[in-house]
Amino acid sequence: MVFRFSKEDGLSGFIPGYNVRTDLALEAHEVLSAREELPGVEVEKDGDQDIVINRVAITTEQGARSMGKAMGNYTTLDVPGLRKKNTALQDKVVRVFYKEIQRMLNLNGEQNIMVIGLGNWNVTPDALGPRVVQELFITRHIMQMKPEILGEGYRSVCAFSPGVLGITGIETGEMIRGIAEHVRPDIIVAIDALAAHRMGRLFTTLQISDTGIVPGSGVGNRRLAINRETMGIPVYAIGIPTVVDAVTIAGDSMDALAVSLKKESPQGNAFANVVQGMEWGEKKEVIHDVLQPFAGDLIVTPKEIDTQIEDISLVIAASLDAAFHPKIAQEEEERGKIH
Amino acid sequence: MVFRFSKEDGLSGFIPGYNVRTDLALEAHEVLSAREELPGVEVEKDGDQDIVINRVAITTEQGARSMGKAMGNYTTLDVPGLRKKNTALQDKVVRVFYKEIQRMLNLNGEQNIMVIGLGNWNVTPDALGPRVVQELFITRHIMQMKPEILGEGYRSVCAFSPGVLGITGIETGEMIRGIAEHVRPDIIVAIDALAAHRMGRLFTTLQISDTGIVPGSGVGNRRLAINRETMGIPVYAIGIPTVVDAVTIAGDSMDALAVSLKKESPQGNAFANVVQGMEWGEKKEVIHDVLQPFAGDLIVTPKEIDTQIEDISLVIAASLDAAFHPKIAQEEEERGKIH
Amino acid sequence: MVFRFSKEDGLSGFIPGYNVRTDLALEAHEVLSAREELPGVEVEKDGDQDIVINRVAITTEQGARSMGKAMGNYTTLDVPGLRKKNTALQDKVVRVFYKEIQRMLNLNGEQNIMVIGLGNWNVTPDALGPRVVQELFITRHIMQMKPEILGEGYRSVCAFSPGVLGITGIETGEMIRGIAEHVRPDIIVAIDALAAHRMGRLFTTLQISDTGIVPGSGVGNRRLAINRETMGIPVYAIGIPTVVDAVTIAGDSMDALAVSLKKESPQGNAFANVVQGMEWGEKKEVIHDVLQPFAGDLIVTPKEIDTQIEDISLVIAASLDAAFHPKIAQEEEERGKIH
Amino acid sequence: MVFRFSKEDGLSGFIPGYNVRTDLALEAHEVLSAREELPGVEVEKDGDQDIVINRVAITTEQGARSMGKAMGNYTTLDVPGLRKKNTALQDKVVRVFYKEIQRMLNLNGEQNIMVIGLGNWNVTPDALGPRVVQELFITRHIMQMKPEILGEGYRSVCAFSPGVLGITGIETGEMIRGIAEHVRPDIIVAIDALAAHRMGRLFTTLQISDTGIVPGSGVGNRRLAINRETMGIPVYAIGIPTVVDAVTIAGDSMDALAVSLKKESPQGNAFANVVQGMEWGEKKEVIHDVLQPFAGDLIVTPKEIDTQIEDISLVIAASLDAAFHPKIAQEEEERGKIH
Repeated sequence: MVFRFSKEDGLSGFIPGYNVRTDLALEAHEVLSAREELPGVEVEKDGDQDIVINRVAITTEQGARSMGKAMGNYTTLDVPGLRKKNTALQDKVVRVFYKEIQRMLNLNGEQNIMVIGLGNWNVTPDALGPRVVQELFITRHIMQMKPEILGEGYRSVCAFSPGVLGITGIETGEMIRGIAEHVRPDIIVAIDALAAHRMGRLFTTLQISDTGIVPGSGVGNRRLAINRETMGIPVYAIGIPTVVDAVTIAGDSMDALAVSLKKESPQGNAFANVVQGMEWGEKKEVIHDVLQPFAGDLIVTPKEIDTQIEDISLVIAASLDAAFHPKIAQEEEERGKIH
Repeated sequence: MVFRFSKEDGLSGFIPGYNVRTDLALEAHEVLSAREELPGVEVEKDGDQDIVINRVAITTEQGARSMGKAMGNYTTLDVPGLRKKNTALQDKVVRVFYKEIQRMLNLNGEQNIMVIGLGNWNVTPDALGPRVVQELFITRHIMQMKPEILGEGYRSVCAFSPGVLGITGIETGEMIRGIAEHVRPDIIVAIDALAAHRMGRLFTTLQISDTGIVPGSGVGNRRLAINRETMGIPVYAIGIPTVVDAVTIAGDSMDALAVSLKKESPQGNAFANVVQGMEWGEKKEVIHDVLQPFAGDLIVTPKEIDTQIEDISLVIAASLDAAFHPKIAQEEEERGKIH
Repeated sequence: MVFRFSKEDGLSGFIPGYNVRTDLALEAHEVLSAREELPGVEVEKDGDQDIVINRVAITTEQGARSMGKAMGNYTTLDVPGLRKKNTALQDKVVRVFYKEIQRMLNLNGEQNIMVIGLGNWNVTPDALGPRVVQELFITRHIMQMKPEILGEGYRSVCAFSPGVLGITGIETGEMIRGIAEHVRPDIIVAIDALAAHRMGRLFTTLQISDTGIVPGSGVGNRRLAINRETMGIPVYAIGIPTVVDAVTIAGDSMDALAVSLKKESPQGNAFANVVQGMEWGEKKEVIHDVLQPFAGDLIVTPKEIDTQIEDISLVIAASLDAAFHPKIAQEEEERGKIH
Repeated sequence: MVFRFSKEDGLSGFIPGYNVRTDLALEAHEVLSAREELPGVEVEKDGDQDIVINRVAITTEQGARSMGKAMGNYTTLDVPGLRKKNTALQDKVVRVFYKEIQRMLNLNGEQNIMVIGLGNWNVTPDALGPRVVQELFITRHIMQMKPEILGEGYRSVCAFSPGVLGITGIETGEMIRGIAEHVRPDIIVAIDALAAHRMGRLFTTLQISDTGIVPGSGVGNRRLAINRETMGIPVYAIGIPTVVDAVTIAGDSMDALAVSLKKESPQGNAFANVVQGMEWGEKKEVIHDVLQPFAGDLIVTPKEIDTQIEDISLVIAASLDAAFHPKIAQEEEERGKIH
């Protein structure tokens, strides 16, 4: 049981009609497909016991409306083992993920790539994007000035972290667009920390999509879309859940209490019916009471988030390096043979 | 209504018998005094409309057991206006807080002071202690080697941030004790980020106590006490709430739902009774379901925590500088005259 | 005696014909005016015993060629006392410098200002610009979205640090221009760490100019100009020397040796003549021998540069805040009255 | 030709009688063995065309006095190719260096190891030690609390960075000793950024010694020895040159000028004789004139030091991990087979 949001709520990242905020298409599909038909949404499963791959395609406007997500393709890797430090598994994820990135990006020929590290580098759970950018192999300036240093097997990659509105006074979207107009990349890849619905997703799910970044997604609420419409070139987004919205925890706790009582007694059952009958407005008031004075700006995150962010950033940076540069992909494959 | 923990729970920071985790003596007193007598606990109010001062004294072992806090003195400043950037108010807080610090520390003569910045500098909400230490005016080496540079009006202050167990492999308490044995300060002042019960406390309440740091308090769960018993000299603790435990949010949401329904209907009332009748064990299961796989290690914190940490760190560092050094206190007072 | 560079050397920042690299117009003037007429260059002195103000105006193309600096105005504050921590003097510098900034920028009405923190945040002596940006009061987003929070007395200020080519793969100039085209500020103020000729200048001289940033200046060798020609709006530059070029130290050591010997004996005198008669090419070879394999990319800087950068960044940020926002200027003036 | 220091100079790190400051025993040996017998100093060469290994043993007090270095063993790896990013070479260095570390440390059985990252994390060229500590695999707390997580093949390693006197007010040596008395490791390994004599050594030479750290060595002038005498257990030191002292550059420039002139003409020859005849006091005055007001506290370092520090820190951390933990050594060897 989940609270139903009225459509006019317009809370970003929330699945229309539910109190479930998630930036993962896969989670939205799980919540919705449990109780309704989802025309215009296709899911394909792949992978093995370590790494489950889901490829979700939202193919119609109706599908997009139901899912509360833009039309396009979303691939997720689910790797529950990632939460524990495991070098061999991390290496395996790199070898699987870089191929999914290549598949999504249709890399061929000599595309120039611009990578954007979204998020606030001063707030640990939002610092994923800047951390990935910091680890990335940057080649654009070398290829322009001294290509002989690199030799064959590399693409032109540049990258930067635009910061957040509160730090710069400038909308992230404005900044990226201005730079893209001068740098003229063929594609943009944006890296962002995401909000998930389920705690179990944190640091274990990797999502790549061809839809870009939509307003209100991510840990730090973007205001402008960063996508093909606004940038004029394909924009891909890679995201990892690092937080759950505190509203989600509050709502889920109420739901869980009702479900728990329902099982037990007639009174519990009656209560569950009451809760199900509640208007969202009422529930929202209850949640806001608990969370005030912060309302919608609270995040739930593990205490030991620093090592999690560190580890997953290295995995993403290595995956991007291998996806972009055939020479590095080859090295990854060779390394893979010894395990 | 709050869940009652069974005593054997032993969760650190939790008020015995309640699902309320707080490192603030004042909050513990508020929760408890609402429904029971509290012998051995005295509260004195002071301050004005901007800054409310509460001086809580736990004077008996029984008081300590009821409150779930060590015997000793706890002074809090409540400054709701601090959450919004307000330079004049920040300056005023410094001028009030440094005097409360002096009062608590009984500074006179030439005490040598060692300041400890507890917490993990890589996790924003836990980085308060290291940030304060970074801003502090360090004088010990100057007073030992070139005291004439400073002249009169200064005390010897040294400071360091021991990091956390996961970074160093060394217990914070071990490290501090080892250093203290060589540095031989007269007193230790430890700075720590705290967990509060109410969101409204975050970054608006400053606590100083003469009890030191007890295991399990703070954002990052210390394991060894840092107090007069373990260090052999007086240990004072300054703490600011920067997070609420996710268990608190989950529990509060359930309580708030029950309270809300109680008002409305007979069914709601019945439900509230059911919840009140629930065993803590049952409720804990419900909460753990929502928070798994992380259980007790999740924190709730505002997205824009970086600027809050930055601002309050400067306030604490300035307060400590003025409390320790008569010359700086004098400058603060002069600055105060122009506002 | 200084080595004469042949014109074709084209080393950036070097005074034409001399082995003196400096980004300070005042130093170039000192070196040159000691031995030649400098038509097209005017110098005006101001200030007091603490803060000497020099206003250098290069008014003709010929003056620009002689000085090796772009035509325009350069104001420097010389504050030898700044190297030692001195809060009262720092406050005084803020009150003098913000007025020089206002004078140079011709601030009136509601200009929108974009501040750029040039340099590499990972290299301490080059991190001045990013540090200043980090401390600056950013208002643009507030004035666009909730101007009532600020009230009267503020201008719109945004700011960012573009990083360096090796980190991003993108020319700093490209990045700034792209962003400026979207943000549409009225003026740009760029902050940069400079190279000086004399060690005594480090952290004690503040320069502001209306010429923007020219290629090859600063600690980190910019490649594209950031000035009115490239940006289409006025570009002001604020710089503080944080390093001396290692080539300068090497050359100066040779000169100093010759000068020292000259005083002493006929042989010394003969030697000095030999050195003066040397071709620059020969001397350069000698220096390159000493500095190889690094040649032109070595900097000389004090070991304790971190606190120097920290202190001067706060002075510049406070000066900019007061220059941009009448409300903050008023507060600075009030604070000034108590000293 | 190098200036001769008078013995009473007592400048730390300087080779007695020469104006050559170096923390590398190998460089001291090179300078000295070029012009005198060195009884009590033995050198053994090893390695290949990529990595030259020198094992210097100072076996008598007389050898120690001549070299200006403590009695003991110093092993250096010279890897000129390291200055350019080269992943395969970095991997090879790890595989060679970890074995030299094991050889020096006599690791066998279950020693507990404490690693110290010396230096100032806020000054890039001095941040080597803290950076290595940050990358190191820390196991002590896991082995004490949950050894089953790791399984076989690991030793207990803890690590911390004590900061510098100016930041903490506490002598590094005091801090380490205090902590060591509680942690009770079997050996200490200290990591430090060094000063070299020749620019070409920067980031290409790795030194490990069994002498600990002596006062005045390193970028940041330690004041207390950190060695077996002061700590009561074996102390090993790993150092990488990241700077050259500015005094060295100034002195070398004078020498180089004289040598260059000597070749050319009778006057040059006469001059060289004059310089050789100069008292050190005179020369020091000349150098101090050039470097004032900073005198002995200036360092020369490449502009792009950040990436150099980053790369070499990863190499050292990986070498230490493999030296300490048989399981990691085994993985390194397997990885080595594919290249």
